Amino acid sequence: MTTIAFIGLGIMGLPMARNLARAGHSVTGVVRSDAAAERADREGVATVRSAADAAAGADVVITMLPDTPDVEAVVDAILPALRGSALVIDMSTIDAGATRAIAARVAAVGGRYVDAPVSGGEAGAIDAALSIMVGGADADVAEARPLFEAMGRTIVHVGPVGAGQVVKAANQLIVAGNIQLVAEAIVLLRAQGADLPAALEVIGGGLAGSTVLERKRDAMLAHRFDPGFRLQLHAKDLGIVERAASSKGLALPLTAAVTQLVRALVARGDGGLDHSALLKLAEELNGTPTSGGHSA
Amino acid sequence: MTTIAFIGLGIMGLPMARNLARAGHSVTGVVRSDAAAERADREGVATVRSAADAAAGADVVITMLPDTPDVEAVVDAILPALRGSALVIDMSTIDAGATRAIAARVAAVGGRYVDAPVSGGEAGAIDAALSIMVGGADADVAEARPLFEAMGRTIVHVGPVGAGQVVKAANQLIVAGNIQLVAEAIVLLRAQGADLPAALEVIGGGLAGSTVLERKRDAMLAHRFDPGFRLQLHAKDLGIVERAASSKGLALPLTAAVTQLVRALVARGDGGLDHSALLKLAEELNGTPTSGGHSA
Amino acid sequence: MTTIAFIGLGIMGLPMARNLARAGHSVTGVVRSDAAAERADREGVATVRSAADAAAGADVVITMLPDTPDVEAVVDAILPALRGSALVIDMSTIDAGATRAIAARVAAVGGRYVDAPVSGGEAGAIDAALSIMVGGADADVAEARPLFEAMGRTIVHVGPVGAGQVVKAANQLIVAGNIQLVAEAIVLLRAQGADLPAALEVIGGGLAGSTVLERKRDAMLAHRFDPGFRLQLHAKDLGIVERAASSKGLALPLTAAVTQLVRALVARGDGGLDHSALLKLAEELNGTPTSGGHSA
Amino acid sequence: MTTIAFIGLGIMGLPMARNLARAGHSVTGVVRSDAAAERADREGVATVRSAADAAAGADVVITMLPDTPDVEAVVDAILPALRGSALVIDMSTIDAGATRAIAARVAAVGGRYVDAPVSGGEAGAIDAALSIMVGGADADVAEARPLFEAMGRTIVHVGPVGAGQVVKAANQLIVAGNIQLVAEAIVLLRAQGADLPAALEVIGGGLAGSTVLERKRDAMLAHRFDPGFRLQLHAKDLGIVERAASSKGLALPLTAAVTQLVRALVARGDGGLDHSALLKLAEELNGTPTSGGHSA
Repeated sequence: MTTIAFIGLGIMGLPMARNLARAGHSVTGVVRSDAAAERADREGVATVRSAADAAAGADVVITMLPDTPDVEAVVDAILPALRGSALVIDMSTIDAGATRAIAARVAAVGGRYVDAPVSGGEAGAIDAALSIMVGGADADVAEARPLFEAMGRTIVHVGPVGAGQVVKAANQLIVAGNIQLVAEAIVLLRAQGADLPAALEVIGGGLAGSTVLERKRDAMLAHRFDPGFRLQLHAKDLGIVERAASSKGLALPLTAAVTQLVRALVARGDGGLDHSALLKLAEELNGTPTSGGHSA
Repeated sequence: MTTIAFIGLGIMGLPMARNLARAGHSVTGVVRSDAAAERADREGVATVRSAADAAAGADVVITMLPDTPDVEAVVDAILPALRGSALVIDMSTIDAGATRAIAARVAAVGGRYVDAPVSGGEAGAIDAALSIMVGGADADVAEARPLFEAMGRTIVHVGPVGAGQVVKAANQLIVAGNIQLVAEAIVLLRAQGADLPAALEVIGGGLAGSTVLERKRDAMLAHRFDPGFRLQLHAKDLGIVERAASSKGLALPLTAAVTQLVRALVARGDGGLDHSALLKLAEELNGTPTSGGHSA
Repeated sequence: MTTIAFIGLGIMGLPMARNLARAGHSVTGVVRSDAAAERADREGVATVRSAADAAAGADVVITMLPDTPDVEAVVDAILPALRGSALVIDMSTIDAGATRAIAARVAAVGGRYVDAPVSGGEAGAIDAALSIMVGGADADVAEARPLFEAMGRTIVHVGPVGAGQVVKAANQLIVAGNIQLVAEAIVLLRAQGADLPAALEVIGGGLAGSTVLERKRDAMLAHRFDPGFRLQLHAKDLGIVERAASSKGLALPLTAAVTQLVRALVARGDGGLDHSALLKLAEELNGTPTSGGHSA
Repeated sequence: MTTIAFIGLGIMGLPMARNLARAGHSVTGVVRSDAAAERADREGVATVRSAADAAAGADVVITMLPDTPDVEAVVDAILPALRGSALVIDMSTIDAGATRAIAARVAAVGGRYVDAPVSGGEAGAIDAALSIMVGGADADVAEARPLFEAMGRTIVHVGPVGAGQVVKAANQLIVAGNIQLVAEAIVLLRAQGADLPAALEVIGGGLAGSTVLERKRDAMLAHRFDPGFRLQLHAKDLGIVERAASSKGLALPLTAAVTQLVRALVARGDGGLDHSALLKLAEELNGTPTSGGHSA
């Protein structure tokens, strides 16, 4: 049994904390309201009102927060309270460069740090079926592994601190690009008069097949863009990709191109839609505005 | 039993013709040399020396040729010899617009036309495991289906004449884009110090997964770019995509971007490499020339 | 004095034919209506009702037509009537490859061919101030030069037959790209709170200066997108660029990117606006729909 | 007469400081060596060994430094020494967001801040002919104007603090894009057999004309890529553009595309060449490696 402070009991975080509690760990979350405390309590997660209080007694601090500044703020807040060699595990999707800087601040007070962003979404969090991309020292990752196994199905150690975020970033650039390519294919197929469902079926069976095509095809053809994974989150993630590339002076032409398209959708007010709504922009750019809920 | 003229006994065409012969059809190919005639004979394929001769006695004429002008030339050559209502099936990957024009010329002499480009490569041709994307009238496609079933595993009727080529084009834009996205991910992961095989494994297990990642990953990491599917053929196919998009005034930004990269590889002399060599250009653009045969 | 058949008495063609007539040449145009004949007559241009009739008696045939198929059709129509060594001068903006094929057809009947597309627009046509990019044999270009001097101010011989069209294509890719870059700069400047007129003034004075910035800036800031040069014509010209690049297997990444944007505007119904309306799409992609006639 | 601390006596800074001294101001620079002190002395610029010492007695502190962290470090170093209402003028090209943060730190100790990046290069610095893009409060800009007039020819107040950097960023995106478009035009013209000098002459005379074409054409055709303005500096500036766009969630497709190309050149080891060497990459992507010093 590990004593865990879990900071970030959101849509993803709460079921993850619950799965840790169910696995027999002592889990304390941080809440701001009685209602949130009750929700956590129902899931077997104890609560306090400040991150520092949660961290004070913990062997392991897990953060699951929206963006880089949130993790920076929480880590700064808990540093004074951190037990000597406590292990901080950040499961948020944030900047790889900032991750290394935060890890250095943790190391400066004797702590250890692992970055472990996830994929699999809310369903994966609930079902303990997340994929977890882990960056950190071998010993620290080994220590964290049982906790990851309570939350996920695929746990892969992908390199030193920061590498987890880098792999998540690479994952997100492929996902965005794949969706856009399917969207462009749909635009071409429709304009040229092909039978869309039949066409996507045969395409999906060959070298052009992808998980995106498999999982998103029907919703895209039906123009059902309820999330799922919101474009505004994907835009944030592509910002992480952009900085990871830029900091190494990398030229990534397709990544840069699809990043602009995701940003355009967010700027136009579609940030709350599922990322498969890249099709919506692709259609609008080609003069065929998407009407909600109607099939192609 | 159908009497078939099979024009184009190349790497793909010869095993396809053989599979038709094995299925009990009478297949006559066209060759220019005794050696080619002997090779065909060993596969159960009779031969003559001109396309018109082959077509003269055939119920069905199948073409499997490199590019649009080849199909145009052959169809022009056989038109005078074509039996009244013969069915011409073009299984080459060629222009959708040209396909419709060729079909009109066939119709003008009373013939019928189906376009049926394939994917699955040489192995798919040998194993009768091709995916076949079929455009044409219902009755014609129904008539051709038993022949397709002798050559392929997945046969999908995707629309009227030309639709087969359109679907193949859409397939090829997705494949090229997916390879390039994996290449960009590899460049990012390596520059940022991630463990490449571990990273690609976890990426492949989630929404970023694709057949490209599954089939091409190891060869890409090992820089083994022997074909497979040559970049110069993929460049040709992206030219077909370009014209299919342009003829409808479509804006396909990622497709256009990856098309330039494929062309650059061909222009630089790498057209004979497998299309996974998009990684080679991605690496050279980032100052890390690929050394043949060595792993990352 | 040269006897000239002038085919294509449109917005550009009529003032060009008039300037030839004013320079003392005998100019016969082709019209389809009495009204058009009267308009031409007022400008000193005689008329007949068929291109073949006009060409029959001419030393020089000039074509000024919308697109490639128009020129092909007219040349095919006049070939039987063409005097032995007549000079055909195409001043339309059409395909470079098609130009070479048309020139070969003219040469096959003993004629000579020069391609001489223009820039400078309607005002340039009226004021005999066009820039003329001339492709052809030295002797033919020398023979045509006095005619060009009656219509234009800058006449440059840029290579063999087809080269005029290639240079016009290169011109059009630069113009489209320059407009888009100014549009992106405006989007950035506005979002970041800079004083737009002041910013564009200082930018225009340095290495970022361009004729586009000088001539289009005020209209762009005021969102006045009345043509000028229509996006649908620019889309046609970028199709010419695309084929000229594609036929040589060239990778032109910025050209390809801006081509998609021009097409998107046309697909969305803005093809009748001036090409400076690339700003309109740039703004819409960034969530700031352009309201007609209002300043930034 | 104003007492000025000038921090950053480099290739640009030293002649700028000299021009201020010649205009009658008391200028003290910061040097690390006796040799640098002597060079400054010969130009009428006094020197001390620390930025804080220089700032202590100054009404105005001018910084002319390579990049954002340099300006941040210097401003942090001088803050304790800064006279109550001293005016800090940063003439470096740095981040717009960081500029606003630095200005806030200066304001917190009672100081005032103006950002005033320049264009015009070493020659402009020597000849007091710089273009200066100024962001700041009206009163502060008015106070700084006489100093700017000693260093530049075009001084434009483009908005509040940070706006100067934003305008410089917009300038740099247009310049990079314009160079790339000329490079792509050259590749197309050469592949299609046009007479390059004649073609660029006629192109430059119309709507495609630009200062880039005028100033860079001959060097590009001769493949003379000695700087001038180094690609590595342009890559840095495009990083500033990227962050300025990203921080506002902007979609700038051509800007993003050309940024990748500039980075590729730097990654390949060409960062020390003039930015017109975008042509070098354009040619290499098209299989025609540039040989140094030879004409096209």
